[in-house]
Amino acid sequence: MPELRKDPIMGRWVIIATDRAKRPTDFVREKVQIRSTGFCPFCPGNESKTPPEIMAYRSDGSLRNCPGWTLRVVANKFPALGIEGSLSRQGEGLYDRMTGIGAHEVIIETPDHQMTLATLPSHRVEEVLWACRERILDLKQDRRFKYVLIFKNHGEAAGASLEHTHSQLIALPVVPVRVREEVNGAREHYNFKERCIFCDIIRQETETGIRVIAENTEFIVLSPFAPRFPFEMWIIPKNHQAAFERAEKRELEQLAVVLKDMLMRLDKVLDHPAYNFIIHTSPLSESTDDYYHWHLEIMPKLTKVAGFEWGTGFYINPTPPEESAKYLREAAVTANA
Amino acid sequence: MPELRKDPIMGRWVIIATDRAKRPTDFVREKVQIRSTGFCPFCPGNESKTPPEIMAYRSDGSLRNCPGWTLRVVANKFPALGIEGSLSRQGEGLYDRMTGIGAHEVIIETPDHQMTLATLPSHRVEEVLWACRERILDLKQDRRFKYVLIFKNHGEAAGASLEHTHSQLIALPVVPVRVREEVNGAREHYNFKERCIFCDIIRQETETGIRVIAENTEFIVLSPFAPRFPFEMWIIPKNHQAAFERAEKRELEQLAVVLKDMLMRLDKVLDHPAYNFIIHTSPLSESTDDYYHWHLEIMPKLTKVAGFEWGTGFYINPTPPEESAKYLREAAVTANA
Repeated sequence: MPELRKDPIMGRWVIIATDRAKRPTDFVREKVQIRSTGFCPFCPGNESKTPPEIMAYRSDGSLRNCPGWTLRVVANKFPALGIEGSLSRQGEGLYDRMTGIGAHEVIIETPDHQMTLATLPSHRVEEVLWACRERILDLKQDRRFKYVLIFKNHGEAAGASLEHTHSQLIALPVVPVRVREEVNGAREHYNFKERCIFCDIIRQETETGIRVIAENTEFIVLSPFAPRFPFEMWIIPKNHQAAFERAEKRELEQLAVVLKDMLMRLDKVLDHPAYNFIIHTSPLSESTDDYYHWHLEIMPKLTKVAGFEWGTGFYINPTPPEESAKYLREAAVTANA
Repeated sequence: MPELRKDPIMGRWVIIATDRAKRPTDFVREKVQIRSTGFCPFCPGNESKTPPEIMAYRSDGSLRNCPGWTLRVVANKFPALGIEGSLSRQGEGLYDRMTGIGAHEVIIETPDHQMTLATLPSHRVEEVLWACRERILDLKQDRRFKYVLIFKNHGEAAGASLEHTHSQLIALPVVPVRVREEVNGAREHYNFKERCIFCDIIRQETETGIRVIAENTEFIVLSPFAPRFPFEMWIIPKNHQAAFERAEKRELEQLAVVLKDMLMRLDKVLDHPAYNFIIHTSPLSESTDDYYHWHLEIMPKLTKVAGFEWGTGFYINPTPPEESAKYLREAAVTANA
């Protein structure tokens, strides 16, 4: 008998298959491989093929928009939103529209076309996290923006259009509905219990242990109780903190270690799957300190979302999180840095 | 400059690209083709390879679970939910779970492996709609169920695992979150205006005409104002009605004609794309008569949903609905029945 489970934060139900639970080898898909065919605008020497750099990390005193960088942030050449102009809101009968103001940036994580976030040394993964933090702090000063989402699409099946490893950032003039639901869910719990629901989840999961994948001094990694996708993972800071951009050195250091470790485990257990990750952090200008708790969600791309999911918002997950946690826990790999 | 638009029912924002709007030929994807390779459990003569039939339309007095049918409804062999047992709810600290009670059925739309819902004569499409209606009316008697979703996955990219044309139905013990949001949005509008928001949308769209694709005596087809997906279409009954299963003969007749017509236009404009459709109807045991309005949503599978969409619930749509409506309007094709 399958089981329905409710996400305690969002109130979203998922269907968890329990009878014919899918193992890692049951998911048929193309392995993500670096093909290095053709021209790459993210490779050193091609800096003029991207929009001018917004920031870069360079250790050798090299020039802006020239080789010598270890990480580079540029505007997306085909942005989903435009950075120029003012926010104008307009009604039209029943309908509401707004100018598509926002920022859409690309974080080129390494000059090396052959690397992935899983194979980069962890101090270089840490650089990526610092760059995200710096960009959020900068964009936060622009009062037009209400939210910044950090995300990564790895592999074509997960929506990556260029294979050179990169993350992305979008600054938005409205708080997106999924974040709003999460923030509201967390606030409701706080109003009722005067506790953070994420802290409560960490406490309960630590007690039972069955969905814990890993932990270090600063972070815990869980298969959530009601995951939408098989092998979904949440990386949650152990200390209550609403906003990612307030993370400190020791936290980003540990996050880099655990993120790299989790991506290596995914590669090992699922043979280099495409994946997405996103950072859910507090809306920019709201005081959510008491009840919201930032975290990083990793979603390997193993299943197809079809009519049932679009029609209901209900997801069918063929692998119980207790099982995916076990596979991922046992796949502990030695970091190469 | 891209534009942000808000869906007036759900309150969901979408990003509509306006500068580099994608035309039908800009979407690269595999054409859905019937390959007819290998064994098909939905073909006549193989009735024993599916679970026993729940109902069938037969004109020739042939026997149950034998050839001679024109339409056949069977339980899904790999159901997402189980039909047997009672609904048991259980808490576990923060978490809630429920036995996965539900019905998951397959409507085999024709014995002919070569046909699609677009190429079937419209009186045969009407049979499919009658079967859906009959099944909902039957499942409604089971008090364990709160909602029945009718949906179709056409083509592998849209999640179809068998190519023999079929629709599906899932009866659920909870009202799914997407339906709940739509019902709540419609109720809020009603509380404020004492009008149905869908009726208001029909009125406003009929006046401007720019997003109207087609209409007949009973239905109007629109590109919605804030569609998540390029070339998304909504088929809405012109007369206010909350529940699909209360549709009458003249309505199902006209719905079959317009649904077939729209699927033919999709095939013509987008060269046989994969697609999903879903019927959104009222929850089974709620009185939504005043404010809810059933409809059918068609979503061609042209874009990839990636990190940004998963993280935000915000969709990026590269084709403005005014343009997709124009393409689809001009693609009027002659029905073959």
